[in-house]
Amino acid sequence: MDSRPIGVFDSGIGGLTVLQEIIEKLPGEDIIYFGDTARIPYGSRSKETVIKYTFQCIRFLLSKNIKAIVIACNTASALALEEAKKVFEIPMMGVIEPGAKAAAAKTKNGRIGVIGTIGTINSESYQKKIRRIQPSADVIGIPCPLFVPLVEEGWEDTDVALMTARKYLLELKEHHIDTLVMGCTHYPILRYTINKVMGEEVTLVNPAYETAKVVKDMLKEMNFLSDKYENGKYQFYVSDDPEKFIRIGGSFLKKEISSVRKINIEML
Amino acid sequence: MDSRPIGVFDSGIGGLTVLQEIIEKLPGEDIIYFGDTARIPYGSRSKETVIKYTFQCIRFLLSKNIKAIVIACNTASALALEEAKKVFEIPMMGVIEPGAKAAAAKTKNGRIGVIGTIGTINSESYQKKIRRIQPSADVIGIPCPLFVPLVEEGWEDTDVALMTARKYLLELKEHHIDTLVMGCTHYPILRYTINKVMGEEVTLVNPAYETAKVVKDMLKEMNFLSDKYENGKYQFYVSDDPEKFIRIGGSFLKKEISSVRKINIEML
Repeated sequence: MDSRPIGVFDSGIGGLTVLQEIIEKLPGEDIIYFGDTARIPYGSRSKETVIKYTFQCIRFLLSKNIKAIVIACNTASALALEEAKKVFEIPMMGVIEPGAKAAAAKTKNGRIGVIGTIGTINSESYQKKIRRIQPSADVIGIPCPLFVPLVEEGWEDTDVALMTARKYLLELKEHHIDTLVMGCTHYPILRYTINKVMGEEVTLVNPAYETAKVVKDMLKEMNFLSDKYENGKYQFYVSDDPEKFIRIGGSFLKKEISSVRKINIEML
Repeated sequence: MDSRPIGVFDSGIGGLTVLQEIIEKLPGEDIIYFGDTARIPYGSRSKETVIKYTFQCIRFLLSKNIKAIVIACNTASALALEEAKKVFEIPMMGVIEPGAKAAAAKTKNGRIGVIGTIGTINSESYQKKIRRIQPSADVIGIPCPLFVPLVEEGWEDTDVALMTARKYLLELKEHHIDTLVMGCTHYPILRYTINKVMGEEVTLVNPAYETAKVVKDMLKEMNFLSDKYENGKYQFYVSDDPEKFIRIGGSFLKKEISSVRKINIEML
């Protein structure tokens, strides 16, 4: 048993959808969440920059005596997880591998779509990971850069969102995929709209949900689970604009966020 | 006569619409442009952070022996120009005042709309400036956060852009404004769509164009104009991803960008 908290970080508020799934699966764990809101979005930055930012986030969480780290950001998982594992000695996982495994397991016709930010899609991380598990899979990645601002505007159920989704997802429909990975933490909030466009015959994979399952298994296996079964405590840190985090974070986490502290991440 | 270059900076590529207008008006001036692409967007950041970033951009430009600085970013003009003028002794101007003056001069019914990022609109900079010039003016500000990602996606002439513009601008139409300030450097690229929604009876004010006029007047008055009348030389610097800057910057500047250097702005 290990009562130390789990550290979770993301480039901003999106990772709260991952946190929410972890809380659902592991309600007794204490968790420290860091959102790098001063430098969001990671999705459009170079690999070198994303690695630098990721290392700073990890150094911050390590200063909090944590037992494991979850990189909730798809871009950071795609571009920096491998590098980070070489440098830091702490159990660490990203959202890509759990999402890729679930997609490979769920597809029946072998045609899988992946949607995400430009950084995540261009890195081909999901695509390569899925093909490694299932070499015959036909995987197509489509970047959907407007989905994040649509969600942050609260427009996830509007006609604008529906029309945007139709435009982005047309190619995936024509390709007759049967499984679609929502490869960005914001996208599960758009799932009803995505579902409306893709139809019931396409299974949506939520890497946040899959990651939470793997976090639980990993902690169990290492005997790192907390001895509590409920009432986990949560601490939130951001690098900019705590008010905005409190204001819109609630809809991502499905519960109210009462207190957020601001830290200077660039010093780490 | 003064052959030193003018320094122009923005949070990213948007300021190239300002640069393009300056080049049009002052084709003989050499110009150094810095786009803080590692930390874009400024629009959603706190005032404190925007001031810090602005000072770093200014320190970088000052290292290049420039004769004047144009803050091409609306958010930085709104939140940091006053502070910067207190600290740095160099002729400096933003895009807010020229835009506000033009709007106050052009309106006939005294009802003026301003659109921009959340940061620019919430700062009330345009609104206050316009009311100071014309106290009886009825000014309404509407943030349009989706306009920047729409332009960066190259979707400025799509149905999605039109529907988004209708949703954002409805309130301004109902308010019967006759003048609309495009208070974000990306928005002039959406002007045909905005025009379609607002109708011919609404005059669009482009602060980039107005700023270029004021830059010319200022340099003339100070006897700071270059002795060349054409063939100005342009140097471009960014803090991240020069390839993306080259790729999409051309449509903002209306000419090809061949060479961009990357600098580490956080060290300044």
